[in-house]
Amino acid sequence: MKKFKVGILGATGMVGQNYVRLLENHPWFQVVYVAASTNSAGVTYEEAVKGRWHMNTPIPEKVRNLIVEDVANIEKASKKCDFVFSAFEISDKNLVKEIEEKYAAAHMPVVSNASANRKTDDVPMLIPEINSDHLKMIKIQQKNHGWSKGFIAVKPNCSLQSYLTPIYALNKAGYPVKKIIITTLQAVSGAGYPGVPSLDMIDNVVPFIGGEEEKTEEEPLKILGSIVNNKFVNNKDLTVSATCTRVPVTNSHLATVNILFKDKKPTKEEIIKIWRNFKSVPQDLKLPFAPINPIIYREEENRPQPAKDRDTDKGMAVTIGRLRPCKIFDYKFVALSHNTVRGAAGGGILNAELLVKEGYIK
Amino acid sequence: MKKFKVGILGATGMVGQNYVRLLENHPWFQVVYVAASTNSAGVTYEEAVKGRWHMNTPIPEKVRNLIVEDVANIEKASKKCDFVFSAFEISDKNLVKEIEEKYAAAHMPVVSNASANRKTDDVPMLIPEINSDHLKMIKIQQKNHGWSKGFIAVKPNCSLQSYLTPIYALNKAGYPVKKIIITTLQAVSGAGYPGVPSLDMIDNVVPFIGGEEEKTEEEPLKILGSIVNNKFVNNKDLTVSATCTRVPVTNSHLATVNILFKDKKPTKEEIIKIWRNFKSVPQDLKLPFAPINPIIYREEENRPQPAKDRDTDKGMAVTIGRLRPCKIFDYKFVALSHNTVRGAAGGGILNAELLVKEGYIK
Amino acid sequence: MKKFKVGILGATGMVGQNYVRLLENHPWFQVVYVAASTNSAGVTYEEAVKGRWHMNTPIPEKVRNLIVEDVANIEKASKKCDFVFSAFEISDKNLVKEIEEKYAAAHMPVVSNASANRKTDDVPMLIPEINSDHLKMIKIQQKNHGWSKGFIAVKPNCSLQSYLTPIYALNKAGYPVKKIIITTLQAVSGAGYPGVPSLDMIDNVVPFIGGEEEKTEEEPLKILGSIVNNKFVNNKDLTVSATCTRVPVTNSHLATVNILFKDKKPTKEEIIKIWRNFKSVPQDLKLPFAPINPIIYREEENRPQPAKDRDTDKGMAVTIGRLRPCKIFDYKFVALSHNTVRGAAGGGILNAELLVKEGYIK
Amino acid sequence: MKKFKVGILGATGMVGQNYVRLLENHPWFQVVYVAASTNSAGVTYEEAVKGRWHMNTPIPEKVRNLIVEDVANIEKASKKCDFVFSAFEISDKNLVKEIEEKYAAAHMPVVSNASANRKTDDVPMLIPEINSDHLKMIKIQQKNHGWSKGFIAVKPNCSLQSYLTPIYALNKAGYPVKKIIITTLQAVSGAGYPGVPSLDMIDNVVPFIGGEEEKTEEEPLKILGSIVNNKFVNNKDLTVSATCTRVPVTNSHLATVNILFKDKKPTKEEIIKIWRNFKSVPQDLKLPFAPINPIIYREEENRPQPAKDRDTDKGMAVTIGRLRPCKIFDYKFVALSHNTVRGAAGGGILNAELLVKEGYIK
Repeated sequence: MKKFKVGILGATGMVGQNYVRLLENHPWFQVVYVAASTNSAGVTYEEAVKGRWHMNTPIPEKVRNLIVEDVANIEKASKKCDFVFSAFEISDKNLVKEIEEKYAAAHMPVVSNASANRKTDDVPMLIPEINSDHLKMIKIQQKNHGWSKGFIAVKPNCSLQSYLTPIYALNKAGYPVKKIIITTLQAVSGAGYPGVPSLDMIDNVVPFIGGEEEKTEEEPLKILGSIVNNKFVNNKDLTVSATCTRVPVTNSHLATVNILFKDKKPTKEEIIKIWRNFKSVPQDLKLPFAPINPIIYREEENRPQPAKDRDTDKGMAVTIGRLRPCKIFDYKFVALSHNTVRGAAGGGILNAELLVKEGYIK
Repeated sequence: MKKFKVGILGATGMVGQNYVRLLENHPWFQVVYVAASTNSAGVTYEEAVKGRWHMNTPIPEKVRNLIVEDVANIEKASKKCDFVFSAFEISDKNLVKEIEEKYAAAHMPVVSNASANRKTDDVPMLIPEINSDHLKMIKIQQKNHGWSKGFIAVKPNCSLQSYLTPIYALNKAGYPVKKIIITTLQAVSGAGYPGVPSLDMIDNVVPFIGGEEEKTEEEPLKILGSIVNNKFVNNKDLTVSATCTRVPVTNSHLATVNILFKDKKPTKEEIIKIWRNFKSVPQDLKLPFAPINPIIYREEENRPQPAKDRDTDKGMAVTIGRLRPCKIFDYKFVALSHNTVRGAAGGGILNAELLVKEGYIK
Repeated sequence: MKKFKVGILGATGMVGQNYVRLLENHPWFQVVYVAASTNSAGVTYEEAVKGRWHMNTPIPEKVRNLIVEDVANIEKASKKCDFVFSAFEISDKNLVKEIEEKYAAAHMPVVSNASANRKTDDVPMLIPEINSDHLKMIKIQQKNHGWSKGFIAVKPNCSLQSYLTPIYALNKAGYPVKKIIITTLQAVSGAGYPGVPSLDMIDNVVPFIGGEEEKTEEEPLKILGSIVNNKFVNNKDLTVSATCTRVPVTNSHLATVNILFKDKKPTKEEIIKIWRNFKSVPQDLKLPFAPINPIIYREEENRPQPAKDRDTDKGMAVTIGRLRPCKIFDYKFVALSHNTVRGAAGGGILNAELLVKEGYIK
Repeated sequence: MKKFKVGILGATGMVGQNYVRLLENHPWFQVVYVAASTNSAGVTYEEAVKGRWHMNTPIPEKVRNLIVEDVANIEKASKKCDFVFSAFEISDKNLVKEIEEKYAAAHMPVVSNASANRKTDDVPMLIPEINSDHLKMIKIQQKNHGWSKGFIAVKPNCSLQSYLTPIYALNKAGYPVKKIIITTLQAVSGAGYPGVPSLDMIDNVVPFIGGEEEKTEEEPLKILGSIVNNKFVNNKDLTVSATCTRVPVTNSHLATVNILFKDKKPTKEEIIKIWRNFKSVPQDLKLPFAPINPIIYREEENRPQPAKDRDTDKGMAVTIGRLRPCKIFDYKFVALSHNTVRGAAGGGILNAELLVKEGYIK
């Protein structure tokens, strides 16, 4: 199989570096193009990330000598790349939205990790195990814009990756969940680099992350929603209430979850069985980054833990533990997923694999 | 005022050391007696805690040369002490229960930090700001046992100190709370010393603390309960569901709290006003360890934080922040209290002060 | 005694905040003026530090409503202040040098924490316990510049505070030290705020701090030097070799120290006695911020430790432990001092107290 | 190639678990036997480590159902195993010495990680890159004891692994090092589990590790020593002075190193070249666990760092940085190695590979 030529936009930031790292030996994709803001452009990738390469493995050989291109040079990108990953960490959402649209207009599929287009009406927000049927919105999006080959597909925020697939597995098994009260204990890598100051994280916890609770509460409704009259309609059955905190952990977000079912309530044993047996489209399609089992349930009373469980199945599986009755809702449990792998670059790669396999990237 | 002569049972453990530290310059109490298990007895206090004195201030002069007595030598204690603090960290609850009863039988009030007698029918579990009316159970207890001067009074678990006083303040203001879903992020000092291994706390979180969720859910019902026919009757209106986690913080427990009111619901402004205006018996009585304001509400969006708020009013005040609407219950907020001060030795001292002022210790 | 009216330049930064905190109840000094860069000027101090007040105690009442002045408004400062503390965290040393000189020229003594003037020929770099005789350089400095009342006096870098006073005590007792090989383990607060990213400090150590080893090696030579022909001459007998590392600690720098004496070598017992008996000018003058004993020696085999020893004598004493023979040099030991108190604002205040008592500030 | 049947003594401890983990897919060795103290014996390995399996990967399939044998059952071990790894974490050195000798007497080579036999006259203490010529002591040892096939070989302490190979590389290149002053910043995993309490490691450093400085100073002399008249003679040219500290890091020991050469002194460039070109016996023999380059030199000014460099070449390479002139000795640098891989189980495995390849294990 010929490898797809891949560009990374925002390649010098933390998420961009994770893409570079995770794509090093990818069987389908080859990074041939790295772009960043004008400031970083014009030198080799190695030069551009000098003193701020934060991965634990060396810069991949095939990328270190690539010249970093100006992200504004869309024409050059369109000649070099079959598609691009958008890994912007820019706070100006309108700017990111505009750039992503320009790339799509230039015939490039844009697989985005940024939040700019998550609420956009005709852009699917994908977790491949949950809503691969939302892919069909891409045709509508292309029609809306008059794009032939290009399009935008996004992944959701890292804070909900740990609990949403387990909830979806229950929904799909005939036990729809109605209410979720959640508290997250999130890793500092979610804030990028330099990100959270160490003075705030030594012997401390910060019980606030700007914008995070809103995303955690709202994005699941779109992901679990449906397409009606060529538009996304949010899931109306579910309500989420979230408190998001930052803890002194490098990687992986942990969530404590209380759930109430809409109608009937499965037994604890049924739930564990549903989770352990859960497989979905990425597993059926044998996508390279798909975890064998998307949901791992552990019996030990003190798991999941960030240091011990984040790397499960290369950081792409969700680990759950402590399922037990709740005195107010039906059940409570603890869930964990790797925020910079499943929750960021790894999730983006899985999206791209799905888009290839389903014929949207070709 | 003549100072009361105070003994500390379990004086060499972490809680015992905190009692020794906090009582150093107490206006009413003077530590004249320290007792521990047979193994530690017979040497000076300084000798007994050598290499395991964990306080940041030196051993108080008046205590360092006291000979550590065997906790079994009750007769000696009864001659020396007006009352005793029980700071046992022994896991055998029956043993602790038995010892505390023997001290009470020997005419000594026992102000306990241990969990052994928290569920005992005629033992009051006190937070002085909340249920000083439960003191009247002491007469019943003395009658039940045939004790004239001795009795047992306990304080509740450290994990609920941060949120229960704020809830009580709302109840008392005419807004009874019906349901509480809570997640705690607890400090390692709660597990004593050596306690939690550092391998479990560097770059990690442990989402489980043995027995803690049960205490967090059950103890509030007794504290907010009433006395009917000379017996404690649990509060029937309230249900608590808790998830307790351990985070890499030395001192203070943080809780994320979701609450649902029973009937009518105050505005956010009313709640903050209720909290800020809340004063109770310890404040009225001007007890030495009473915080001026038991509840501090902070406006900053990222507070309370352990490192910044735990020492507020010498560690005796509860700090609250982030009060905001909850999409499922009525409100959510974050609360914090110092686990080894308000939640342990400091709370015990405040109980003793209340017992003195109300005439139970004399 | 009438209090001196004090201004703080760079009052909104970390060092500035520490000055504000430590001066709250100072018996001689009252903060009446706070200045910062043009960006921060024109609002109240409370407003200016909103969301970035990093002290654990509230903003002092007398400072919170002061209007932050532009640091360039020297005339206003000179009308309001008897003297100023310079707490700049600006990287442009020439700029800081220029500003400090302008304040001195405007008749204000400048007690500086900044590094800009540490190497200046006629500016004394003071540790009051060591080189109060360097004060006489002030007259020469005033003469050089034609200043009547104003002058500049600085304090040295925080990294050398833990070991230099103990070395000086040995020198003074007749045992001059010739060679020092040192490794420091330094706290993150030394880098200000936001300072060191938490991603670099969780489960990690960074064995490099820009410019720190040079300061640690060179500054002691001036401090222990003499004044010859109205000029500072570096100490020629001592050589220091330093490795400076950053560790996940909030406050206090620890140093492991290997020393070789120039001539004769005292016994371990003599050294400990010299340290314990050491008192100097600040103690004789009973300066308010002077520690009772500048050097504390602890016998425990595992001390000093940052968490346990940094606050000794309000953070102004140095704590030493583990004195033992070295197989290569004569002895080795471990030393610790609080970097933001003794090593920054507290040290600056002690300098100012000395300057007052010796008649340089009046 | 037929795989060797391997037993692990002390298999349930931290070091034992690391052996189990690292040997999972070893090309030459297969774990067929796990032994522990009587208390842990008689159940499956999975059962024996329940709740205290500290590795981040699952228990290897081939080991989880092995029955844990009593370490005293030497006869059974001798029937099942070609050789054994000794991973005891028992503090009683005489007991460990005795057990290891019994296994050797029962015809089993013992490749030990324990300290019990490090000082034993006829037991080689091996770092394969340095002193593979010490293997010939094994024949002498076997003769001394009358052992035909069994013998004992040990590895040195983890604290010296980071700096000793670089020193040896310089010695071998004709630049013998005479004096080393070193400070180590060591990870908590070196103390096993539960090991260092988290209360000592949050916002703290402990500048003492019992027995560690003695090992760090003495063991290099044997490793760099020679065999004269069938006995080990310590290296007489080298002196080491060490200060060992514990820092809040999970894995890998960092050392700051000051060195003085005996005679002539290479340039910085020569040293880096010597290190980068250094290869030795394990590389020549292509041992499976041998790092390609035993010494990695990094140019960045802030490396090596535990979190970024410990896993280099599967944790078997040493990483060095910051080589620069020392004002007192000749040079100083920073070195890092993974304490539980290169410094413990990985080092033991490399020793066993060498022993196989050189014909001592067959």
